[in-house]
Amino acid sequence: MKAGLGIDIGGTNTKIILISEKSRVLKEVRFKTESARGYAGFLAVLSENINSLKKQFSGVRISGAGIGMAGDIDSERGILRFSPNLNGWRGIPLVADLRKRTGLDYAMENDANMAAWGAYVLELKRKARNVLVATLGTGIGGGVIVEGKLYHGSTGTAGEIGHAVIDPAGEKCACGNRGCLEAYCGSGAIVKRALSMIKNVEAYRARYGSGPDKKINTIALANAADAGDRTAKKVWAETGLYLGHGFGSMILVLNPEYLILTGGVSKGARHFMPSMNRAMEEFRIRTPFEKIRIIVSENADLGSYGAALYGLHSREN
Amino acid sequence: MKAGLGIDIGGTNTKIILISEKSRVLKEVRFKTESARGYAGFLAVLSENINSLKKQFSGVRISGAGIGMAGDIDSERGILRFSPNLNGWRGIPLVADLRKRTGLDYAMENDANMAAWGAYVLELKRKARNVLVATLGTGIGGGVIVEGKLYHGSTGTAGEIGHAVIDPAGEKCACGNRGCLEAYCGSGAIVKRALSMIKNVEAYRARYGSGPDKKINTIALANAADAGDRTAKKVWAETGLYLGHGFGSMILVLNPEYLILTGGVSKGARHFMPSMNRAMEEFRIRTPFEKIRIIVSENADLGSYGAALYGLHSREN
Repeated sequence: MKAGLGIDIGGTNTKIILISEKSRVLKEVRFKTESARGYAGFLAVLSENINSLKKQFSGVRISGAGIGMAGDIDSERGILRFSPNLNGWRGIPLVADLRKRTGLDYAMENDANMAAWGAYVLELKRKARNVLVATLGTGIGGGVIVEGKLYHGSTGTAGEIGHAVIDPAGEKCACGNRGCLEAYCGSGAIVKRALSMIKNVEAYRARYGSGPDKKINTIALANAADAGDRTAKKVWAETGLYLGHGFGSMILVLNPEYLILTGGVSKGARHFMPSMNRAMEEFRIRTPFEKIRIIVSENADLGSYGAALYGLHSREN
Repeated sequence: MKAGLGIDIGGTNTKIILISEKSRVLKEVRFKTESARGYAGFLAVLSENINSLKKQFSGVRISGAGIGMAGDIDSERGILRFSPNLNGWRGIPLVADLRKRTGLDYAMENDANMAAWGAYVLELKRKARNVLVATLGTGIGGGVIVEGKLYHGSTGTAGEIGHAVIDPAGEKCACGNRGCLEAYCGSGAIVKRALSMIKNVEAYRARYGSGPDKKINTIALANAADAGDRTAKKVWAETGLYLGHGFGSMILVLNPEYLILTGGVSKGARHFMPSMNRAMEEFRIRTPFEKIRIIVSENADLGSYGAALYGLHSREN
């Protein structure tokens, strides 16, 4: 039996999955990334996990492996250039190091690119040619599929849609620039906008708060909007406007067949889609907008899934 | 001898060129498009010109032909969907009609795409993989080269960078939307901004005006800036800021190796590049900006040239 191995390395958790050729999950392993302890320690834990997984599935031939990593990736050379989310790691030759320790070949990409590949395969079965995938979470990332292939751009940075600027004089972004899409539509920005409008935060938490600690997050705001809460509805409507402005320009540049929305914030899609579509209607070159189809992917594990699938597919080329 | 035929159909003029395989111009023909007279008449004049050119160069084998056309083009089916610049023509099957009348096969694209291909071939000899070409004129258009090929997008509209929005609450654009890049950096917008700042227009015309009728256009403003005129310098600096904002976001999405600037407004590049670069320095994801090279193409005939080259190259695929 052939299988694909996918590794998703995030600031908090690292996840390894093994999937069959038919995309069935055979095994899932998760551990804390703990990048502050340094790269050598992380590499040891990761290799150990992969090798033990290989032993456990000795009857399975791992015919492809992929790594998605939060950061600036040199996918051609398999090097992490820099990651602010991984304790500032720089110049990490992860692909070569892992190859030595596990005997496998890896295709490494930015995590958003891997998630984009996952969405492309799972939602569209690779049938569309040109697709823009947006991961809407704390951060906003993206990936671009061009003519059925993951498009890296010249330095592997293509699809950095979260820091495309929708208003040069606008909100300060965590990246240091102003007016980035993420500064308006990242989950933090959405919640901050809601909090600034909520008069009695404690009452709001009690009524709509999410989870055991009654957090006001995008899930809470989606539920609140469902219940008819005006503040939440307004916040989602604004979010949709900003997304429509940002995506609209990208659609003019990329002219994709599909826009796929993923990530936690896309759980609010039913509330932001109407205003997002209205904002896109303002664009006067209509053909790309008339033809595009917008879908929301409910799959929460696109990162590791996409990495495994990409590992499998990269063997085809 | 093999040759390529290129046709550039603009709102005012239609240009036909015949080039050798080595890109030498063998012949150039120009006539008024006069789209108001209707498509049938235009088709007759165009076919006649092509057939007489074929007769004249009967020793030459035209191995590829390309058409660049201002408008919304269905390049797969060779149909002009709609062109506001060509008297609102709609649903014109130009490729089939010309094939019938001239016996040649044509690749048809939006004129900006053809100009982009021309710039890619002439400036870079097709050696880079991923390139964004911006045509800065009365309108702003663009074309995208991905992995060495012209990228059409799903409806042939990819690269419509002029109507990407840099400020959703900003200047009214001729297209009907607000804040489009073209509304700030198209030649009309630049001149309008200058005129609003010039106190004595007649004196300014006398001093810097371009051509026999002493026009204040982007050439005049480039000359004025050369001569140290503060107003012109300020206008160009603002233009650079807007371009930097617009291109910056596109560079994050596309991550090209090169950005090539063409068109009349790029004649002011020496005056807008400093502020354009400064605006791009505000973007915090640095890798794509550190690696990109920005060049200005001085070739004025990229449209017809690109069409001829594209016609030649499309035969290769």
